[in-house]
Amino acid sequence: MTPTAPVGTPSGPRPVTVACCQLALQVGRVEENRARIRAAVEDAAAQGAGIVVLPELANCGYVFEDAAELHALAEPLDGPTVREWTELAARLRLVIAGGFAERGDDGRTYNSAVLVDETGPRAAYRKAHLWNGEKTWGFTPGSQRPPVVDTRHGRIGLMVCYDLEFPEWVRLAALDGADLLCGPVNWPLYPRPEGERPGEIVRVQADAAVNRMFVAVADRVGTERGQDWLGGSTVVDADGYPVTASRLGEEAVLTATVDLAQARDKSISEHNDVHQDRRPTLYAHPGSDPS
Amino acid sequence: MTPTAPVGTPSGPRPVTVACCQLALQVGRVEENRARIRAAVEDAAAQGAGIVVLPELANCGYVFEDAAELHALAEPLDGPTVREWTELAARLRLVIAGGFAERGDDGRTYNSAVLVDETGPRAAYRKAHLWNGEKTWGFTPGSQRPPVVDTRHGRIGLMVCYDLEFPEWVRLAALDGADLLCGPVNWPLYPRPEGERPGEIVRVQADAAVNRMFVAVADRVGTERGQDWLGGSTVVDADGYPVTASRLGEEAVLTATVDLAQARDKSISEHNDVHQDRRPTLYAHPGSDPS
Repeated sequence: MTPTAPVGTPSGPRPVTVACCQLALQVGRVEENRARIRAAVEDAAAQGAGIVVLPELANCGYVFEDAAELHALAEPLDGPTVREWTELAARLRLVIAGGFAERGDDGRTYNSAVLVDETGPRAAYRKAHLWNGEKTWGFTPGSQRPPVVDTRHGRIGLMVCYDLEFPEWVRLAALDGADLLCGPVNWPLYPRPEGERPGEIVRVQADAAVNRMFVAVADRVGTERGQDWLGGSTVVDADGYPVTASRLGEEAVLTATVDLAQARDKSISEHNDVHQDRRPTLYAHPGSDPS
Repeated sequence: MTPTAPVGTPSGPRPVTVACCQLALQVGRVEENRARIRAAVEDAAAQGAGIVVLPELANCGYVFEDAAELHALAEPLDGPTVREWTELAARLRLVIAGGFAERGDDGRTYNSAVLVDETGPRAAYRKAHLWNGEKTWGFTPGSQRPPVVDTRHGRIGLMVCYDLEFPEWVRLAALDGADLLCGPVNWPLYPRPEGERPGEIVRVQADAAVNRMFVAVADRVGTERGQDWLGGSTVVDADGYPVTASRLGEEAVLTATVDLAQARDKSISEHNDVHQDRRPTLYAHPGSDPS
């Protein structure tokens, strides 16, 4: 008998430490970026992490001059960045989720994320909702659903930055059973009212709570060609509250130990379940959505 | 030529003061509840409000013993509660959104909300996502989309409490053009991590931001048959930040003057628009959603 279901964690995941590497990277400085990532991943492992999240486009930086600069920095899925992350995952026994600029077999460039363990890439994903300059630098938006992979630490979903602002997209990963959604991001720093938590984090809190799913985000810090980054990395629990200390704007490896098994229980009251209570037959919008 | 589109506000809405009446009501004490609402609405008008939001089930309270008690307290849409709100709207020149227990023409009981102006009900809505005891007290869930009504102050959408936790539902009102979503709620008080804003408010912030739409919520306070209410009323702007002072747990009429015209511009960067960037053809979930 051939099992067709993923090799499971029948009794559910056990507590695991998740680390978000909040890094100052620079566009084009690929070797420096890789070294910085390597050091952060080793730091995360030393802190006991089982799952490590890296920022969006971590191999190459973000603020490209033009499509030519981006294209020159993109790598195939089996290129040096993902190979190194696989080696780190194997050596330090980690599951690593991170973003990189991907040159596809089709010659196109994607804002991709990959989930690797010691066996290599377990899933690759291409950002479906492109942000601002990404539309002019020649990124092609992906059209595949966010992957959800059964790992030794639980089921992990993957998407990139602006994708997290589309609750429909987050819902897909949650309905596919993600216990933890990993989001490599590069959040630009915007003004906000005094005393307010950045809206990007607020929206991730909502993503988590309405699905009773953990979310881990690794953001950038510092300034790159005049662009300031927020540095808003966080791990949010299934109730929607951050469980990492805030290290806004600092270079840091943020860690939290979480019980991802909590995400297997979607009930929030005696008679409510955040997924069973959905009424999907009512949700298509006649003016804009397929019905 | 008969106009079929709503009479518009071609140059967009002008700034308006929104008031959220955060009230201590008691189940079954209909006359006292009405008097309390009347006083709060008059207070709101005195503070210059043009739009007033009242809590969920404001006519009758919330913590019913059983279906019989609820059924006895439900009123038709043309009953005394909605008539009085219409009179208040006419006398004080207000648009009022509030929740009440509705006895339908079909004999069923609904957790409804109504939007009234001086002409009477402009829209009625029946809560589609029922919370906990509402499922045992004999409420029937509604199956109609949240209404969006063109008022003198802009386009106002309407839904009730737990509905706000389903981003798909909020999206429908936003795609139908709501500048302001009014949500009568009764938010139970739950424990939360120290220093954290209640998750219910966080989720409303996300509802607003991902749609660039204002949201106004009127909550309950106090204790009713042992049930403590949060008192988390708030007005959130189109960037997703609260613009009312926090009056957590206090009886209060919270007001904020907002420029609802901001909700007509969905752009958030040179190349991004929160609605145009959606990819609805990708959003149906094959396992659970109609495709």
